[in-house]
Amino acid sequence: VRGQPLPFAGLKLDRADNLRADPERMAELAGPDARLLRLEGLIPRLGEDACLQWGRCGDLGDDAELVFLGLLDGEALFAAVPADGDTDPAYTRRETWAALGQLGPDELALYGGARSVLDWHARHRFCARCGGPTRIAKGGWQRDCTGAACAAQHFPRVDPVTIMLVEHDGRLLLGRSPRFPEGSYSALAGFVEPGESIEEAVAREVLEEAGVRVRDVSYIASQPWPFPSQLMIACHAHADDDALTIDETELEDARWFTRDEVRDALENGAESRSFRAPTPQAIARHMLQWWLEEER
Amino acid sequence: VRGQPLPFAGLKLDRADNLRADPERMAELAGPDARLLRLEGLIPRLGEDACLQWGRCGDLGDDAELVFLGLLDGEALFAAVPADGDTDPAYTRRETWAALGQLGPDELALYGGARSVLDWHARHRFCARCGGPTRIAKGGWQRDCTGAACAAQHFPRVDPVTIMLVEHDGRLLLGRSPRFPEGSYSALAGFVEPGESIEEAVAREVLEEAGVRVRDVSYIASQPWPFPSQLMIACHAHADDDALTIDETELEDARWFTRDEVRDALENGAESRSFRAPTPQAIARHMLQWWLEEER
Repeated sequence: VRGQPLPFAGLKLDRADNLRADPERMAELAGPDARLLRLEGLIPRLGEDACLQWGRCGDLGDDAELVFLGLLDGEALFAAVPADGDTDPAYTRRETWAALGQLGPDELALYGGARSVLDWHARHRFCARCGGPTRIAKGGWQRDCTGAACAAQHFPRVDPVTIMLVEHDGRLLLGRSPRFPEGSYSALAGFVEPGESIEEAVAREVLEEAGVRVRDVSYIASQPWPFPSQLMIACHAHADDDALTIDETELEDARWFTRDEVRDALENGAESRSFRAPTPQAIARHMLQWWLEEER
Repeated sequence: VRGQPLPFAGLKLDRADNLRADPERMAELAGPDARLLRLEGLIPRLGEDACLQWGRCGDLGDDAELVFLGLLDGEALFAAVPADGDTDPAYTRRETWAALGQLGPDELALYGGARSVLDWHARHRFCARCGGPTRIAKGGWQRDCTGAACAAQHFPRVDPVTIMLVEHDGRLLLGRSPRFPEGSYSALAGFVEPGESIEEAVAREVLEEAGVRVRDVSYIASQPWPFPSQLMIACHAHADDDALTIDETELEDARWFTRDEVRDALENGAESRSFRAPTPQAIARHMLQWWLEEER
């Protein structure tokens, strides 16, 4: 987990945030020949080389909303805000996932970051404060309310989520949501709420979902997750007791797994006799790998 | 920093999130005699005992929007959404800060969490997706769009912010924003953007604001910050070089400080000959303390 960027992290672009606030420079960069990420809505369109495809900003109408993704070798990259954001959950998006499975790490990071911002724009065309229309600003890293009496500024949202390895006596607590594929288990997770630290969010989530009290919460790693825009914060925690009280509105099942069972799941995929491990794009899978490697 | 909750963390309430989704139970708990946090807008009203004051839900009109804060010794606590959210920055709110200086840690956590959610409601009375009115839902932990064609659900926002101790050769990089009180310096900080990890956000912010490249970013601690609703994520990083290129749109100055200078600032307050340290409520001050205590 430490050392190499996790999937969706490791963006190679220079975000060049100093250019965003300069409308003239932005207009100059977004000329008709500027590179534009090819998407169908939010679905990436890959070429035969299994790479992201690029068009030109000139292909778009004048009313297109453009997001400045950053500079790659000095060249500006853009993407256009789609008509609609995503309302269906990520795991139902088979076309998107098929494409993601083909992308290398650099393109995965580029697509993920673009997707989060584009989806946010598509779902924030109005001002939450006054209900008036908003317009894109600062190269796509802001939206401004157009109502003179309000003029609120809005910024792309990032939602911090804790995801945790809970350990007791050498075993790990994993759970399955009713919407998981059959046999799949993963680390418990939940959004950080206003008024709590990361460590408190971890303890609250585990208590709510599995009825287990934890101590010694420690940070492992973090990952951006673009469905739509989470910051996954991976932690480890110790449980003093292994008795479970499962919140059945959240989890279908939760169980303690041994190192052998976790290893079996990671090594044998669908053939595993213990459980189906999370997808390679998910930080949860890397956390399990880390747990096996870490001698504690 | 580790071991004891930071200011605004350490909430003693049971958030009882399982009750939020039960409208009948919520209505029952929010009866006329239920306890209601006394606020003037978002400003806490303290009694002569320097404690938060409580009224009754029955004091409010029928159209008041109530947030269920949680259970304290089995008793439900509520707060009402004010007419307006905060638009002025936190540091200009002298009345609020005077009150916060008097509160003990438990009440600081209770007020901070309540403030974040209340402010979010006041600034989200409309649907960002369609512009239609929203209404409070799930005991104040959600807002629903009232438009039948949209029906979007919205959740209280928490914005992850990185704040970092950048170290080079035993000295620490601190900066001052033009809006800081005279002589004040603090740790550099910035919002996590979509598409980046915590560690990447730290490196990007330091490079943008001070022109310094960092390595070996490590997590220290986290804190909820209710102005309006940040999750402060404290990190440490090493710089290989101490040459600074300051972004003057963000910082008025940035400098390297020795341990003696940091100690002087923490111990001598306004009398310090080096700089004025951050307020005790800010995680930045606790990070400086931690740096002095940690032998690295």
